[in-house]
Amino acid sequence: MNTSNRRIVLARRPQGMVTPDLFRLETVPMPGVGPGQVLVRNHYFSLDPYMRGRMEESKSYAEPQKLDDVMLGASVGVVEASQHADFAAGDTVMGGFGWQEYGVTDGAMLRKIDTRSIPMSAYLGVVGMPGVTAWYGLKKICEPKPTDTVLVSAASGAVGSVVGQLAKAIGCRTIGIAGGAAKCEHVVKDLGFDACIDHREHADLHSMAAALKAAAPTGIDCVFENVGGHCLDGALAAINPFGRVALCGLIAGYNGQSIPLENVRALLVMRVKVQGFIIADHLDIWPAALGELAQGVAAGRIKYRESVAHGLEAAPEAFIGLLQGRNFGKQVVRLV
Amino acid sequence: MNTSNRRIVLARRPQGMVTPDLFRLETVPMPGVGPGQVLVRNHYFSLDPYMRGRMEESKSYAEPQKLDDVMLGASVGVVEASQHADFAAGDTVMGGFGWQEYGVTDGAMLRKIDTRSIPMSAYLGVVGMPGVTAWYGLKKICEPKPTDTVLVSAASGAVGSVVGQLAKAIGCRTIGIAGGAAKCEHVVKDLGFDACIDHREHADLHSMAAALKAAAPTGIDCVFENVGGHCLDGALAAINPFGRVALCGLIAGYNGQSIPLENVRALLVMRVKVQGFIIADHLDIWPAALGELAQGVAAGRIKYRESVAHGLEAAPEAFIGLLQGRNFGKQVVRLV
Repeated sequence: MNTSNRRIVLARRPQGMVTPDLFRLETVPMPGVGPGQVLVRNHYFSLDPYMRGRMEESKSYAEPQKLDDVMLGASVGVVEASQHADFAAGDTVMGGFGWQEYGVTDGAMLRKIDTRSIPMSAYLGVVGMPGVTAWYGLKKICEPKPTDTVLVSAASGAVGSVVGQLAKAIGCRTIGIAGGAAKCEHVVKDLGFDACIDHREHADLHSMAAALKAAAPTGIDCVFENVGGHCLDGALAAINPFGRVALCGLIAGYNGQSIPLENVRALLVMRVKVQGFIIADHLDIWPAALGELAQGVAAGRIKYRESVAHGLEAAPEAFIGLLQGRNFGKQVVRLV
Repeated sequence: MNTSNRRIVLARRPQGMVTPDLFRLETVPMPGVGPGQVLVRNHYFSLDPYMRGRMEESKSYAEPQKLDDVMLGASVGVVEASQHADFAAGDTVMGGFGWQEYGVTDGAMLRKIDTRSIPMSAYLGVVGMPGVTAWYGLKKICEPKPTDTVLVSAASGAVGSVVGQLAKAIGCRTIGIAGGAAKCEHVVKDLGFDACIDHREHADLHSMAAALKAAAPTGIDCVFENVGGHCLDGALAAINPFGRVALCGLIAGYNGQSIPLENVRALLVMRVKVQGFIIADHLDIWPAALGELAQGVAAGRIKYRESVAHGLEAAPEAFIGLLQGRNFGKQVVRLV
């Protein structure tokens, strides 16, 4: 067994773009396992857009990522050693150990996962936080009727891909926005969206609004927003009365760009609801959502795609790629 | 009895600012009263910011005001002649006859009003559409708890003045935004708000945000928004987690100015709900709201102030003044 643990810490806070020099790879002693504790070897950890927000020092919904501390986030792995009654060596578990090879916990945030019909890494995506985020925003904020048209930005991503498939299962006309022809083709052919708009081909508001109106001839009823900027303004140009916007992310502004909303008037005239949300506020719905998602994945009804980076050293570049849309589906880092 | 009716029609649609030449005063024959019809003499009619929106030809929640047709809106008056079983000459009534001296109706939108303890003109304001708008946005969208801080823009106006008094009755810390020292003094001293910010003294976002943070040391929980622009952006700079914004009006943009929302990120980070609304969508709550407002006015608990323009000819200038904030309280035109 290893006697050391390698991890990536936040060395500096970003000024605008995230760059590799903000991170530092460290080798530290393997943590000991005391009474009531569990040692887990991470097989995969998750890279998510929300981590960009936590790198800032400013007030946000979560505490900022601490400097010189391991980058936090979800992880899946196998119990190496346990002095906890609920866990035994060999158990497959999900935890929050972040960007490192090993972690120790008192078990409070650790949960056993069943990998017989669902791969371990999927618990970081479609049957994890991103999947539950999709489920909550669509079902509890958008509340679409089968006759509604649903728009999803970042449609090929970990969250958007699930939103679209859940909306299709409800019966909605479902339109995606994604970056590039390959992602758009995946969104329509593999995920079953009715249409997908390449935001690179429609990089200004006028062009995006025209494309959305063409793709949604009866207007848009629900928007699941992951991007902001001209994606959201374009959506509001086509929104129907009593439209709902589940505001899940604003990746267009994650490097500090100003992304003002131009079409504020549509919110009033069309009596739109915009609801910002963070899935950690809604722990009560996780069991129901995860149950439905796990069934869908196990049965093959819900499809997903992953971008896998290999090895701890690959995490910073993979994270930077995620922020720039270079990932294709859920971005994870594989360690084992 | 008069044999002619004078009225003001929309002669042209505005290009930006509203100017007197967009309107035309006409004298037309007195309308006849057929079977099932009621002839009403208007004593007062209402001037409201929403009328600016209807002057545009563009898609909105209501049909555009027709060209060469009488300017539509709420009115109160007395029945002159009736061939309708439910109304008799001398009844005091509320209707939608707009900017004219007389109107005829089949009675569908006519309702008798009790002027024994509430003045006739108040049915155009505090116990009419503006009052119900205040009631709905505060109670059904903002849903404030007694410990919440409520912010109201256009706080001395027909809607804002009622919002603030209802919020104070709930127990909330209540902050207004109004234009000028006289309005701010009225908002605090007469209406009982805890504080009022003069937007002329805080004309940019930085200054407004600082003033709001000072006035709301524990942050803002509810925003009743009538203005938009830097009032709303300033509010979002001080908003608390799970804040609610009842989006009732955007008078900052009524002349076609661009009023982008800069602080979109706060909607996400603070998990804010923004709900645009139009009171005509919520007819079910009118009886309960009007009952509560009428009781409050009759008992003197709810105060209101009016700007009264005298005579039909005064309507265009009074309306332009309303759009520029020259009114002080509910703007009406008195005809009798």
